[in-house]
Amino acid sequence: MTVHNFSAGPCILPKEVLQQASQAVQEFDGLDLSLIEISHRSKSFIGVMDRAIELVKELLEVPKGYSVLFLQGGASLEFTMVPHNLMKAKGGSAAYSVTGTWAKKALKEAQKLGAATAISDSSDRNFCYIPKDESIPETADYYHCTSNNTIFGTQIKEFPSSPVPVVCDMSSDIFSRKVDVEKFGLIYAGAQKNMGPAGATVVIVNDELLGHTGRDIPTMLDYRTHIEKESMFHTPPVFAVYVSMLTLQWLKDRGGIQWVSERNAKKAGMMYGEIDRNPLFEGTADREDRSTMNACFLLKDDSLKERFDEMWKAAGISGINGHRSVGGYRASMYNALPPESVQTLVDVMKELERTKG
Amino acid sequence: MTVHNFSAGPCILPKEVLQQASQAVQEFDGLDLSLIEISHRSKSFIGVMDRAIELVKELLEVPKGYSVLFLQGGASLEFTMVPHNLMKAKGGSAAYSVTGTWAKKALKEAQKLGAATAISDSSDRNFCYIPKDESIPETADYYHCTSNNTIFGTQIKEFPSSPVPVVCDMSSDIFSRKVDVEKFGLIYAGAQKNMGPAGATVVIVNDELLGHTGRDIPTMLDYRTHIEKESMFHTPPVFAVYVSMLTLQWLKDRGGIQWVSERNAKKAGMMYGEIDRNPLFEGTADREDRSTMNACFLLKDDSLKERFDEMWKAAGISGINGHRSVGGYRASMYNALPPESVQTLVDVMKELERTKG
Repeated sequence: MTVHNFSAGPCILPKEVLQQASQAVQEFDGLDLSLIEISHRSKSFIGVMDRAIELVKELLEVPKGYSVLFLQGGASLEFTMVPHNLMKAKGGSAAYSVTGTWAKKALKEAQKLGAATAISDSSDRNFCYIPKDESIPETADYYHCTSNNTIFGTQIKEFPSSPVPVVCDMSSDIFSRKVDVEKFGLIYAGAQKNMGPAGATVVIVNDELLGHTGRDIPTMLDYRTHIEKESMFHTPPVFAVYVSMLTLQWLKDRGGIQWVSERNAKKAGMMYGEIDRNPLFEGTADREDRSTMNACFLLKDDSLKERFDEMWKAAGISGINGHRSVGGYRASMYNALPPESVQTLVDVMKELERTKG
Repeated sequence: MTVHNFSAGPCILPKEVLQQASQAVQEFDGLDLSLIEISHRSKSFIGVMDRAIELVKELLEVPKGYSVLFLQGGASLEFTMVPHNLMKAKGGSAAYSVTGTWAKKALKEAQKLGAATAISDSSDRNFCYIPKDESIPETADYYHCTSNNTIFGTQIKEFPSSPVPVVCDMSSDIFSRKVDVEKFGLIYAGAQKNMGPAGATVVIVNDELLGHTGRDIPTMLDYRTHIEKESMFHTPPVFAVYVSMLTLQWLKDRGGIQWVSERNAKKAGMMYGEIDRNPLFEGTADREDRSTMNACFLLKDDSLKERFDEMWKAAGISGINGHRSVGGYRASMYNALPPESVQTLVDVMKELERTKG
């Protein structure tokens, strides 16, 4: 049976990638050994790491002077690594845009190290919009934002111009659209949406920003450690890096960011088109800030819930229950989700309208 | 061709585990989805995490009052998590036994946070022995040791009695022999030797030791965060936890620690027996401190190197080049390595002796 996997993350990965990954767990690179039982210092695995880094650089057109790292600990560990590396030890400060649950957590970690403040906060309307016209203080060591809010289905369409380095958590929309890396000081993302399985984190950092805090950073939290050792300071998460590499290669082979951003726009258009057209449903995020990755919507009449749930389950749809903070439904449409899956959901929504009696 | 995988880590895993893991990457738990594309909050994955934790508790007979965690970042991140959680913020101190490269790195991280000192150090003879009769100061917040030194092939046979909590890095021999967990305050280990693939870390900690430092710990570095959320504070390294669970189940099915410790003793006996008997070779570690996991040895006559290397390669042996800090050879004999592989290496050593001319 075809399952239409709308999971919010970990989420759908390309079938071809899963097949190759499965094969590599049995036998890898003609070694008669599994990928996961060879040394990370072997020529075979170094090739994987090098290629993964190269693909990130190619796909996002990472400019010179930036390093690309594969680390562990997800965005959650980045929440503390960022201020450790960028906030001055004495008199440091940082400006945070609080657009959701994860942004709040990021701010909390920075506040443990210095004067980090929320310069904007959309919690007044349950994070259903992206604050505009922020005033970013010139005195801040950096400005931090979250490009896509998985839980609330909002996405920054235009990044603010900033007098200080911009740090962005792109966990849930990296590789989904073109971004001008040069405008960012640091980008980080957990792998488990558009890049690969859980267990790896990608970091893209402007090298010039590092080493100016006067802080004695724990070695593992210091980006310079990992830059110097090319993400091999200690044993990397071999399998997660390998599957990320395969997924990025899959993306490149199909036309890269240009191809996928058009496909993602098409899927989001189909989805929001139906949410807006169908009188039984309503979207939860402000239209101008709607995420192309996660569409959050409600049934206007809760009494239809049981019937709708039966219908989408029968159609092979999986993972569209909304997060408890929003309720209703959330259709996550990451890179690997085919437009046919969105069409299937749209058809079920239409069918509910037609048959509701 | 059968490869005899003596890799020092990531290292050999049971064939049956690799087959199941490969299958799960294609399809998992009857969901028509891959293990790596489902939510970590799904019933299917929560079952995996719960079982993995339960197996650690069963196999090591973890007493009540201890928590078992699956984290990321390997032993290297533990090097800073341990002092963050156990060393008093004001006037804290810790005593380290420096028995190798990793122990040195652990000490370095603790020194960033307080008065950590090496109370013993075997670098005077290139870490070829384990210091005995250490005097552990009663004023230390904890004592830290490394149970097995992968690079130098030494292993603590009897842990010192300590007036303060004992913290042990067991990365390279956990689950290889019986340990009395009650005698430790905290045990940690990267997965990638006896437990599974790279990308997960297991921590076993006496809950009572936590929360007494007066330190504001970054959330992700605070063991209490992960205890409270049962290792699901953020997205866990799904694949690495799953394969660890399979490997621990494999161990349990075969007879657990009792079975494997006998098997490991037998393999080590065969290996060191030949190193000592064969006039062409010599071991590098002091006999009483020899590791059952990693046997380091040298060819007495370097001119035989080319020939020996050809011979073991022809026999399908892989991964026995020694670490550059020791040179020569290192046969890593982790849990999943069958005795037949050791026999194959011993036969090659005998053959070299017989034919050296």
